Amino acid sequence: MPQTNRQVRLAARPSGLPRPADWEFTTEPAPSPAAGEFVTRISHVSIDPAMRGWMNAGFSYVPPVEIGAVMRAGGIGRVTASENDEFAVGDYVYGTFGVQEYAVSDGRGVLKLDLSLADPTAYLGVLGMTGLTAYFGLLETGRVKEGDTVVVSGAAGATGSVAGQIAKIKGCRVIGIAGGPEKCRLVTEEFGFDACIDYRMPHLRRTLREMTPDGVDVYFDNVGGEILDDVLTCIARGARVVICGAVSQYNETQVRGPANYMMLLVQRATMTGFLVFDFARRYPEAMAELAGWYQAGRLKSQQTIVQGGVEDFPETLLKLFEGVNTGKLILALGDAADS
Amino acid sequence: MPQTNRQVRLAARPSGLPRPADWEFTTEPAPSPAAGEFVTRISHVSIDPAMRGWMNAGFSYVPPVEIGAVMRAGGIGRVTASENDEFAVGDYVYGTFGVQEYAVSDGRGVLKLDLSLADPTAYLGVLGMTGLTAYFGLLETGRVKEGDTVVVSGAAGATGSVAGQIAKIKGCRVIGIAGGPEKCRLVTEEFGFDACIDYRMPHLRRTLREMTPDGVDVYFDNVGGEILDDVLTCIARGARVVICGAVSQYNETQVRGPANYMMLLVQRATMTGFLVFDFARRYPEAMAELAGWYQAGRLKSQQTIVQGGVEDFPETLLKLFEGVNTGKLILALGDAADS
Repeated sequence: MPQTNRQVRLAARPSGLPRPADWEFTTEPAPSPAAGEFVTRISHVSIDPAMRGWMNAGFSYVPPVEIGAVMRAGGIGRVTASENDEFAVGDYVYGTFGVQEYAVSDGRGVLKLDLSLADPTAYLGVLGMTGLTAYFGLLETGRVKEGDTVVVSGAAGATGSVAGQIAKIKGCRVIGIAGGPEKCRLVTEEFGFDACIDYRMPHLRRTLREMTPDGVDVYFDNVGGEILDDVLTCIARGARVVICGAVSQYNETQVRGPANYMMLLVQRATMTGFLVFDFARRYPEAMAELAGWYQAGRLKSQQTIVQGGVEDFPETLLKLFEGVNTGKLILALGDAADS
Repeated sequence: MPQTNRQVRLAARPSGLPRPADWEFTTEPAPSPAAGEFVTRISHVSIDPAMRGWMNAGFSYVPPVEIGAVMRAGGIGRVTASENDEFAVGDYVYGTFGVQEYAVSDGRGVLKLDLSLADPTAYLGVLGMTGLTAYFGLLETGRVKEGDTVVVSGAAGATGSVAGQIAKIKGCRVIGIAGGPEKCRLVTEEFGFDACIDYRMPHLRRTLREMTPDGVDVYFDNVGGEILDDVLTCIARGARVVICGAVSQYNETQVRGPANYMMLLVQRATMTGFLVFDFARRYPEAMAELAGWYQAGRLKSQQTIVQGGVEDFPETLLKLFEGVNTGKLILALGDAADS
């Protein structure tokens, strides 16, 4: 029986939350590698808030996913066929393989996973782009230093949970913001933040002000919207506001800008956006440091793994925006994930 | 006849544009200096957008003007009586003297003016806090370098006109944004910007994009609001957005935040607020450089001087928000200004 490759393609550009009609499912013969190429059977697909942005038309940091194209996604899996000397059958690899069962690649942007350090799925989270994003955003863009008061939104999420843990390792006082008591408990008890504020409770701004009497030195923002405005009222002199994401706004047709941005002037503060790709040359050193912390038990990994097939991708993506997952959200693809 | 001191005091905190009932006029005997003090007869009052913020309650970079207090204002004038060894009768000085005819001071924060370099009123504009604000905001916060594309809003205004001229001196390509064809002509012909866009014309965003094919490296923002959002769509990789002011928002009860702030992420850019006071130690070197450019004719000063008395202050302040002035707006106080 010839192998097939089931795929999820973008059928239409969504307005607001993606709907079923925005997706198309296709089945093709599984690819064979040409000279210099190899084929990966994808076991786990990374589900990321940034995906929503990739679905929009217009200028951004990467080109939009074309209508009719396989949806862009990071993923991991095993090499099943290879005509490339650097990747052998059986290698476990990470790459931007798309939402499909098999991907063909020439090796560019593909990393081999060191399974002696961690389970494969850690390379989608704490040891992958997620961990690297937290690492460079906090240390380079945020320039945290010992004794800083650091606030992290989306604190129970993939990037936020790692950012807060790194801040703790660096000797900061770290306050998370997350939705609901369960997540807040996870943030303090599992990830070791000093405190966590449930943004669903009233008076976030007042609570945060009471908890940060000397102001917020670094705010690592994953959510945008009203929470960004609340934190801006509490920033300290010379604060660094790190814009990592704005998940509260990705499905809004009218984005809410930070009305309190003039606090940047009042406090001589900076709001800076960053992209992890700009630090690509330094991935090895960062991964080595992250792996060291991980193996020493100082950096904990949390995942929400949805078992299914590629056809479960659309619904899984929506979980991100419902805020139901904790840690890294991953779609595990049936047999491939088990093998 | 004993001298009197007419004063303008804050009677109520305005909502929106200040109204006549928000002010109170008082007349007191002119002050006499105690030991270590001196008295200045104020000739010119600086009219600044920041004044509107000082009238609001709540936390900011300076305490609000108290209800019943003389309205805070920068000003210049001659010393008329002195019990302070460093300030002699006849000295021309700058200080935060308030909206009144006479001010008593112990000398803190007061500068003696060098009238061999420029007329006194230049010390409220190009050689004063206005010029220093443009200087440090552009060079330190904006970190402009030769060849940068620089955009300045409020380009016909006091700070914007100086910021753009400094950017030209530093070898940048400079595009102003101003309201109306008269101001735009002034910006290009008098202040020497490479171009000026009239924001009252349609399609500001498209026009700006056409004029900045390689993107905006530095945006010196005095206005906020919709124009800030338009410029954000045109920023270059690594751009520096310098928040100097937001005059379009000062009288709004609901501030408009920059909805396009995620362009900071797309372009790995920074939005930074600054206050000139933080550079106080470096005022002398900056003033020397500004004075050198001014005397060489490379930095042009433009003023809108309203002749009147302190009772004309409320109406003069409103001119700022009507956008009718060009360059530095100054209230000249009758006889004192003529002497």
